[in-house]
Amino acid sequence: MRKWGGLIARYGARLAISQSVEPVTLYEGDTPLIPAPRLGDAVVPGGQLFLKYEGLNPTGSFKDRGMTTAITQAVADGARSVVCASTGNTAASAAAYAARAGLKCIVLIPDGKIALGKLAGAVAYGARVIAVKGSFDDGLRMVREASERAPVALVNSVNPARLQGQKTAAWEVTEQLGQAPDWLCLPIGNAGNITAYWLGFCEDEKGLPRLLGAQAAGAAPLIQGKQIKNPETRATAIRIGNPARWQEAVSALERSNGHVLSVTDDEIFAAYHMTARLEGIFCEPSSAAGVAGLIKSVASGKVNPEGKRFVCVLTGHGLKDPDSAVDGAERPISIAPTTAAFLEVLGV
Amino acid sequence: MRKWGGLIARYGARLAISQSVEPVTLYEGDTPLIPAPRLGDAVVPGGQLFLKYEGLNPTGSFKDRGMTTAITQAVADGARSVVCASTGNTAASAAAYAARAGLKCIVLIPDGKIALGKLAGAVAYGARVIAVKGSFDDGLRMVREASERAPVALVNSVNPARLQGQKTAAWEVTEQLGQAPDWLCLPIGNAGNITAYWLGFCEDEKGLPRLLGAQAAGAAPLIQGKQIKNPETRATAIRIGNPARWQEAVSALERSNGHVLSVTDDEIFAAYHMTARLEGIFCEPSSAAGVAGLIKSVASGKVNPEGKRFVCVLTGHGLKDPDSAVDGAERPISIAPTTAAFLEVLGV
Repeated sequence: MRKWGGLIARYGARLAISQSVEPVTLYEGDTPLIPAPRLGDAVVPGGQLFLKYEGLNPTGSFKDRGMTTAITQAVADGARSVVCASTGNTAASAAAYAARAGLKCIVLIPDGKIALGKLAGAVAYGARVIAVKGSFDDGLRMVREASERAPVALVNSVNPARLQGQKTAAWEVTEQLGQAPDWLCLPIGNAGNITAYWLGFCEDEKGLPRLLGAQAAGAAPLIQGKQIKNPETRATAIRIGNPARWQEAVSALERSNGHVLSVTDDEIFAAYHMTARLEGIFCEPSSAAGVAGLIKSVASGKVNPEGKRFVCVLTGHGLKDPDSAVDGAERPISIAPTTAAFLEVLGV
Repeated sequence: MRKWGGLIARYGARLAISQSVEPVTLYEGDTPLIPAPRLGDAVVPGGQLFLKYEGLNPTGSFKDRGMTTAITQAVADGARSVVCASTGNTAASAAAYAARAGLKCIVLIPDGKIALGKLAGAVAYGARVIAVKGSFDDGLRMVREASERAPVALVNSVNPARLQGQKTAAWEVTEQLGQAPDWLCLPIGNAGNITAYWLGFCEDEKGLPRLLGAQAAGAAPLIQGKQIKNPETRATAIRIGNPARWQEAVSALERSNGHVLSVTDDEIFAAYHMTARLEGIFCEPSSAAGVAGLIKSVASGKVNPEGKRFVCVLTGHGLKDPDSAVDGAERPISIAPTTAAFLEVLGV
């Protein structure tokens, strides 16, 4: 049983943010590290697999780790409003922590490209959503420039306080497992998360995992070695062609003696379905990229699972994207309202 | 930091279920009890308010507490399949734990009444969904009868193992708060949750709260003293006209010197928005019924908040029902892709 008070209460002195104000917290972090024996048998025969289920953070994704620190820092800096450009998890998290702190939150989205339902979180928490007649990159430029000229705090991942909270996930993994895993596998989109994990493991000085990073094949700048103009993948949370922390990610992969690869959408969705159906754990499609990357790396012989311990980070909850769950699902068969009819279907 | 292994690992001996098999767990429970000072100032002036955020269970609702025990018992009993009639949270939870245990899960839904999207959880976890040409009650009758005649375990809330897991929420509240609250406020639908909380507090012998139960006005059999043939409310998780644990709920309310009342959908949604916008906590509409009931009871003088500690149970995550979050929300305004345009909107 926990009397958990969130990441800053737990790790405050190890986080390079202002300690001058009360933490803005929704009791994020402390997510479970769940053994996945059935998926493990299928994916890493001879090894052990664990899933770090970040979808159980308050707004349903790992973004809350960095947002408790970013919004606390914003309050310490005297901000009254926060801004971000986002179409999903960052917006929801920023909106929630801003609400918690009594700050205004303004979210920029590309006009006409985003269904309102995708913004359910941000809208629920009372963020003001503004559509930009331009691209996502336009929105990001606008919030960056505006934050330099107006008293609004930018909470996109270029904000250094974000990494401070995010790195705590590495500390949790090591503590929960008793030591660092042999391999830590995760999706790479904007590359903030892999950067934060590596920072966390290095600071912790309790052992370093090898990092396995997976990009969606249609949005794989690290693999192709160049910016992707029009990134495409159904794993929308990693549909990013020019990662903000590209160099840090490359450095972390190299220093960890890691492995980076691309996985197709079909491979991502196969991993997504396996995780839900073998273990009862429902994640966002993008979250499954790490699992898909591990499957592919074992199959190709790049990773030998024998005797090794693997942690796959599931970055968001499947409820963030219900459409993907039912996409392609068969319509239910229909039966008469009698027990006999039901028993017949059961084959009894 | 927790090395949390779920409810049975934590409370095993206090749960009246079989101890003969390994627990089937997704590391449910141990959900945060979050102080809500801003909502508290608005709702219980002079008192203190805390929110038990059950939406952070693995499948997004409190149902996981009872499902770890029900599915573990089913495995101990040798079941190979589990069945339930449900349109939402129970189905998702049953499907997840069945997947975790390697059991088949069959869910009965009323034909034509349920959008596939509402079943995202159950579908994702691989449950077999069967539509019944009849009502929800027909489905419940069919699964009850079938479970008596075929080797399938019924995991609807009539299964006594469900209460065993659910009662642990009361123990967590008392431990997290240091003592039982003065009032515990929650929605009443099928009345299993209020029954389980009361059982838990009584067994714990660490103090008893007064219970405040809220029903939706269009689905308020306890208030009207009669079964409701066609219950109606937009808080779909409590749209129930004939609660399975009606008598237990009435008894718990009486013995706790509690209070039961009905709240309109408008009152429920007002509480839902206040909770998200003042505290950054997004719950299912039905979850907000407890908050709405508390607001109404303080306003009417039935509950005096002065010096009292209140816990409102938020039974499910808002992501379970994204449509309700965006319903009625304004379309975003649209601006040119320039920082000047953005600064103008910011009023700078």
